[in-house]
Amino acid sequence: MFESEVQIRVRYAETDQMGYVYYGNYAAYYEVTRTEVFRRLGINYKEMEAAGTMMPVLELKCKYIRPAKYDDMLTIKLFVKHKPKGSRILFEYEVYNEEKMLLNVGETTMVFVDMKTGRPKAVPEFIHEKLDPYFTA
Amino acid sequence: MFESEVQIRVRYAETDQMGYVYYGNYAAYYEVTRTEVFRRLGINYKEMEAAGTMMPVLELKCKYIRPAKYDDMLTIKLFVKHKPKGSRILFEYEVYNEEKMLLNVGETTMVFVDMKTGRPKAVPEFIHEKLDPYFTA
Amino acid sequence: MFESEVQIRVRYAETDQMGYVYYGNYAAYYEVTRTEVFRRLGINYKEMEAAGTMMPVLELKCKYIRPAKYDDMLTIKLFVKHKPKGSRILFEYEVYNEEKMLLNVGETTMVFVDMKTGRPKAVPEFIHEKLDPYFTA
Amino acid sequence: MFESEVQIRVRYAETDQMGYVYYGNYAAYYEVTRTEVFRRLGINYKEMEAAGTMMPVLELKCKYIRPAKYDDMLTIKLFVKHKPKGSRILFEYEVYNEEKMLLNVGETTMVFVDMKTGRPKAVPEFIHEKLDPYFTA
Repeated sequence: MFESEVQIRVRYAETDQMGYVYYGNYAAYYEVTRTEVFRRLGINYKEMEAAGTMMPVLELKCKYIRPAKYDDMLTIKLFVKHKPKGSRILFEYEVYNEEKMLLNVGETTMVFVDMKTGRPKAVPEFIHEKLDPYFTA
Repeated sequence: MFESEVQIRVRYAETDQMGYVYYGNYAAYYEVTRTEVFRRLGINYKEMEAAGTMMPVLELKCKYIRPAKYDDMLTIKLFVKHKPKGSRILFEYEVYNEEKMLLNVGETTMVFVDMKTGRPKAVPEFIHEKLDPYFTA
Repeated sequence: MFESEVQIRVRYAETDQMGYVYYGNYAAYYEVTRTEVFRRLGINYKEMEAAGTMMPVLELKCKYIRPAKYDDMLTIKLFVKHKPKGSRILFEYEVYNEEKMLLNVGETTMVFVDMKTGRPKAVPEFIHEKLDPYFTA
Repeated sequence: MFESEVQIRVRYAETDQMGYVYYGNYAAYYEVTRTEVFRRLGINYKEMEAAGTMMPVLELKCKYIRPAKYDDMLTIKLFVKHKPKGSRILFEYEVYNEEKMLLNVGETTMVFVDMKTGRPKAVPEFIHEKLDPYFTA
């Protein structure tokens, strides 16, 4: 299994009148987490897209357990629990506050797409190189 | 089954550099749809919250089938397929573009919460009055 | 002078924990207003961009007079007070609530840009055709 | 003069279909900058609000010089050029990319408000204590 984590401070802009982070904003937290974790692995998403491969989201799931609040320093854990195969990759997320309380869990299924053809393509070799070692027994 | 629909025009602000609606923005489309459909049923969410009952989201699911694009006039269908019971209600959504192509499906599970105690409470009687007729055989 | 107006309902997503519309969200209200008013004039911004002319914002000003709140039906008045010349156009906005109270005033200076060269270009002829009649004595 | 700076990485969510940061998103960058700079000064905005003083924005100005792009690591400089007096404080901002190119300049005028009365109040003493030393000759 691959696991990493990123910290994100809740912005005022992200709260709603309930005083909580608006439920649609977790998607952006997950996105930032993916990008930063990829960067640590030596994968630059921006360059990947510039080179013609994009990675749109096929499916999003989110469970809201406790509210995140303004100025909370969130820890977002990202997991890849299964070696990616075919053209898809599943990321799972857990969001914690500073008191290590679990606030939110989620997952996104991404698909690698060739931007020229608009068609799914196999998980790129450089992704396998970075991630596969975490799955070898 | 209860069914209704709402139209929402895609804003420039909601697109991302792929040229598509950012995947996190569908949550707001679902929210607008819920509010407008409630209004038609004679339920004002703002007043309900002012009267001490809020309806936070417990769970969100989203499947992205085709991209929505800037200036698309989306039709968002909302379904309540099961008579609400206990303290929860499940809304299902289908998002279509002007060519009646299905772009996105989703669901949100909401819970009624007493804002004084912060605890779940039964689906309010005035919600039952409005929705239950759609489920009587 | 050219004047038109658009109505926008405040979304829950747009509020913040003060219970007001977050100050950064008026920019999107102005954008929606521009797009809708252009549409009424027979100018489709999406098609204009597809045809190679974009209209980025050079300058934004916003004064916050009274807060807009969740579910408010805002009326946003758009004014073009001076006949556009050169490559720029100035839009002015006034935001009112249902009680006709003035909540916000703003302005955006836009520039027409040739997307191939990335350089400013003169206000297109079809814009002049639509707007100039409002300025003839 | 008081001066400080904060770094913010551009999120995918913040881009639009032009491939640039959407013009309304700078307001949130300014907000994050204010909060982080205040924190360094020993002023916690969240606690200030919890203690009954809020600081809404009266006026926003933004000039867009060059576009910020996805994944850019922005440096946002914040300046307080004049010793705050009365109930207001003026923040000025400059946004730079990694190549030290100036992308955006802006300013926000904030007012201190007593949340019980909803009325403006003098700049709090603890703000003066932190900021005034930067203005003594």
